[in-house]
Amino acid sequence: MEYKFASRMERMKASEIRELLKLTARPEIISFAGGLPAPELFPVKEIAQVSHDLVLKEGQKLLQYATTEGRPTLREKIAKRMTEKYKTPVVADDILITTGSQQCLDFAGKLFLDPGDVVLCESPSYLGALNAFNAYQPVFKEVPTDGEGIIPEELDKILASTPKCKFIYVIPDFQNPTGICWSLERRKKFIEVINKYDLPVFEDNPYGELRYRGESFPTLKSMDTKGLVSFLGTFSKIFCPGLRLGWIAGPHAIVEKFVMIKQSADLHTSNFDQGVADAYMDTYDLDAHVKEIVALYGHRRDLILKTMEEELPEGVEFTRPDGGLFLWVTVPEGVSARKVFDKCIEQKVAAVIGDAFYPNDKTDRSMRVNYSCMPDDKIVEGVKRMAKAIKECM
Amino acid sequence: MEYKFASRMERMKASEIRELLKLTARPEIISFAGGLPAPELFPVKEIAQVSHDLVLKEGQKLLQYATTEGRPTLREKIAKRMTEKYKTPVVADDILITTGSQQCLDFAGKLFLDPGDVVLCESPSYLGALNAFNAYQPVFKEVPTDGEGIIPEELDKILASTPKCKFIYVIPDFQNPTGICWSLERRKKFIEVINKYDLPVFEDNPYGELRYRGESFPTLKSMDTKGLVSFLGTFSKIFCPGLRLGWIAGPHAIVEKFVMIKQSADLHTSNFDQGVADAYMDTYDLDAHVKEIVALYGHRRDLILKTMEEELPEGVEFTRPDGGLFLWVTVPEGVSARKVFDKCIEQKVAAVIGDAFYPNDKTDRSMRVNYSCMPDDKIVEGVKRMAKAIKECM
Repeated sequence: MEYKFASRMERMKASEIRELLKLTARPEIISFAGGLPAPELFPVKEIAQVSHDLVLKEGQKLLQYATTEGRPTLREKIAKRMTEKYKTPVVADDILITTGSQQCLDFAGKLFLDPGDVVLCESPSYLGALNAFNAYQPVFKEVPTDGEGIIPEELDKILASTPKCKFIYVIPDFQNPTGICWSLERRKKFIEVINKYDLPVFEDNPYGELRYRGESFPTLKSMDTKGLVSFLGTFSKIFCPGLRLGWIAGPHAIVEKFVMIKQSADLHTSNFDQGVADAYMDTYDLDAHVKEIVALYGHRRDLILKTMEEELPEGVEFTRPDGGLFLWVTVPEGVSARKVFDKCIEQKVAAVIGDAFYPNDKTDRSMRVNYSCMPDDKIVEGVKRMAKAIKECM
Repeated sequence: MEYKFASRMERMKASEIRELLKLTARPEIISFAGGLPAPELFPVKEIAQVSHDLVLKEGQKLLQYATTEGRPTLREKIAKRMTEKYKTPVVADDILITTGSQQCLDFAGKLFLDPGDVVLCESPSYLGALNAFNAYQPVFKEVPTDGEGIIPEELDKILASTPKCKFIYVIPDFQNPTGICWSLERRKKFIEVINKYDLPVFEDNPYGELRYRGESFPTLKSMDTKGLVSFLGTFSKIFCPGLRLGWIAGPHAIVEKFVMIKQSADLHTSNFDQGVADAYMDTYDLDAHVKEIVALYGHRRDLILKTMEEELPEGVEFTRPDGGLFLWVTVPEGVSARKVFDKCIEQKVAAVIGDAFYPNDKTDRSMRVNYSCMPDDKIVEGVKRMAKAIKECM
């Protein structure tokens, strides 16, 4: 049977990354390719108990259909946490709980994009966001970045010369894939530029709480005076991703539309998942749990950086993130990251080839390396193997 | 701030039904307006126990990211259940587990519809499906129905004269909103017509197992010889809807595309929800649970029909469904269902005005009545109030 699919489907290909991840899942391979939180830190016993008690306590309500906006007490907790921990004052009414923050990316595209509209993003940017927007047939414009984050002057230039820019998608804190965190100065200038053009912003912040060194910078949302910034949050990195729980905290007019979109998309987020997170926070200290995560990942970050400094050949560059799950390795000019990847697989180590993270301008120089989900000995051995693979390509 | 939303948003209005449901949620009102399963039947204790044990047993895996396609053992169980119980042979590989079956409706639109494409549906049809498709800016063509279901000859006429028909959406078993179940003859003729035009079909079947009288008819999917029919299933009516669990069982080429769409939409369905349903079925007898549901709803169906026959004034018609959650009341010509609704609210009883269920041709003659979620005394009292309201409008 030949089906006549919508024209958007021509752009939606099976993700190459997904295929590569299958390759890297072979047990003999040390894989830095994933982006998984460390499962040994999941509060398993606590969640078992909390689930049991919650279902017994309010099962008839918990297991029933619920409101699209989300569990009221969880929305309040998120608002409080954003206000206190992120210094980003939000009211519960302006929060929608979503089926992971990935769902917010789909909704952002659905809300704003007609075919041919322009989406702006950092170069490089999160592949899952690019794929979500891609379904709505936009044109992508990449804004250049450096070690301090996005370059606001470049954004200004693009906005001055590009019609139909509908929104910009950014990850200012420990970006996926590079691990870079925008400086305060960049944040301020960025806000000036978006204010000048009234450009809506989706600020994706899955990693902000996972800071291992230094002080946090203000969220873009907290600096927003015009109702331009929507903040996307998730429980996946600070609690666990198997419960699909994210949220948008945005201007009321945008959240209201997201609610309407969500009603058609999946009615509401799992009421069970929402209840478990809510009850966990009633009973246990989420901040204390996050501290444990930060301690472990911070250690792994230090170890991988130290090993890379010792092992990787001269000319190879890599970011030194102060938080998050990823760092970004750039091989010397003239060396192909794709060839390095092939050599890595031969050496039984893997990372993600960087070009997937550029919607337009493919480079063949970089790889994304995840360090959150691996014991010390494998980190050391994996980096050694990677060093060997890179040397063979140089 | 004035946001420039996508053109699709002009069509997506806050559901009028949603506003009405708020009205009908007032505690003094006996509401037949919802579509909720009876929460007193949720297996609360069993789910409490199963959740607890499951998290302890496999928490690190359960709470981690998972494959987009869904939990393998749950996909196998669904395939087995469809093969044995629905007499619809399916393999696990052709099943994708979704965040409720509502998500399948969104994906159907996303997969097939460019603006201006034609979606066919029964007249009337499920409002939530119409809203989901509407986001992809189609033209709706309604196919006439009668007490035996869709009229295949009318479908043939429409297909012969209408270009760009991308798919038809149908609910052959105890349809929402009418409660009608297609006869075997209609099913056979329907398959002939779709085969003639190679028309893809989304067969939504949330209520098929909730049959109170008579024998089941074959699913359309089981009669499909050309790879045209995708079956949409859900745990919401046979287990509980607070876990968001649905599925598509379709031709491989369609399920494959749904997987790709789902990856961008929300990565995967809650792994916790999937695990709980899976473990419940390992430990308990879902069929026995469904029998309890059927016994209770069947009783309520008998009671509401008996009361309607006794109380509603002559000239008022209503369907007599053999299953499902809904029946459809039609007031005599010249009487406005909207006015009846207003009178009903005065009398402190509510149902849903029927015109919401027609994408194009609004009638003002019908109301959808839900009977699954109400104790006997309220059913009787509610129908009496409704009878009074109708009489006042005649």
